Amino acid sequence: MNKSLSHADVKVGDTLPALTLPAIGRTTLALYAGASGDHNPIHIDIDFARRSRMPDVFAHGMLSAAYVARALTDWAPQRQLRSLALRFTGITHLGHRPTCSGRVTETFEAGGERRARVELRCANQYGEDKIVGEAVLALD
Amino acid sequence: MNKSLSHADVKVGDTLPALTLPAIGRTTLALYAGASGDHNPIHIDIDFARRSRMPDVFAHGMLSAAYVARALTDWAPQRQLRSLALRFTGITHLGHRPTCSGRVTETFEAGGERRARVELRCANQYGEDKIVGEAVLALD
Repeated sequence: MNKSLSHADVKVGDTLPALTLPAIGRTTLALYAGASGDHNPIHIDIDFARRSRMPDVFAHGMLSAAYVARALTDWAPQRQLRSLALRFTGITHLGHRPTCSGRVTETFEAGGERRARVELRCANQYGEDKIVGEAVLALD
Repeated sequence: MNKSLSHADVKVGDTLPALTLPAIGRTTLALYAGASGDHNPIHIDIDFARRSRMPDVFAHGMLSAAYVARALTDWAPQRQLRSLALRFTGITHLGHRPTCSGRVTETFEAGGERRARVELRCANQYGEDKIVGEAVLALD
């Protein structure tokens, strides 16, 4: 369990430790299909993907979203999370290595507590953004 | 729930209703990898399969074995099953349509009950055997 994040620990401009994942492979996508309940063959069946005019299968968006959430909860306990909003901006193809990162953009008072706003992104090894978004965390 | 099998119902030469499955596809194999815990990439990653000198991914042997067991328990309640022994005799490739069938070869007394021996097989649409084996069932 990571330790709780206090208001003394966090200031605007702070960055989360980046989380870099192994290259996306077919096995990961096959197992994620079962684990997530998203059985769309576009992610696991190369023949179906090609019939759908894609060059190959590609990653579930929610898989990368889960990686972003992991980067966040590696940094702060989940109980401190107040909101998480993500937007998909590109396709994660086989062989892409996702790196999830974040940066504190604001600290403020709301709901009777001190909070921090964190800008989040997930990019591949070529610096192409695949997910952007933000989280709000309560600070102890 | 299928009804129990009594000794009056079963005689040598009887056949089980054949169970024919849809053609084996990549999605089925991806989901079976997660469901079974057998994450061997040879069944779900075409690149890995080709590096392993196979033309493509192919079905988990235990998937076909599960189909054989389903044909059996569609015919007799599982509580009547005393033994099940299967042997793999060939590779089930993508596009193969498994048909599981069985035939009563013997009835006999053992363990204080009447039993039936059932010869089982799973073949593809070309009549190529992929699994052969036998089960012993207790008869009510």
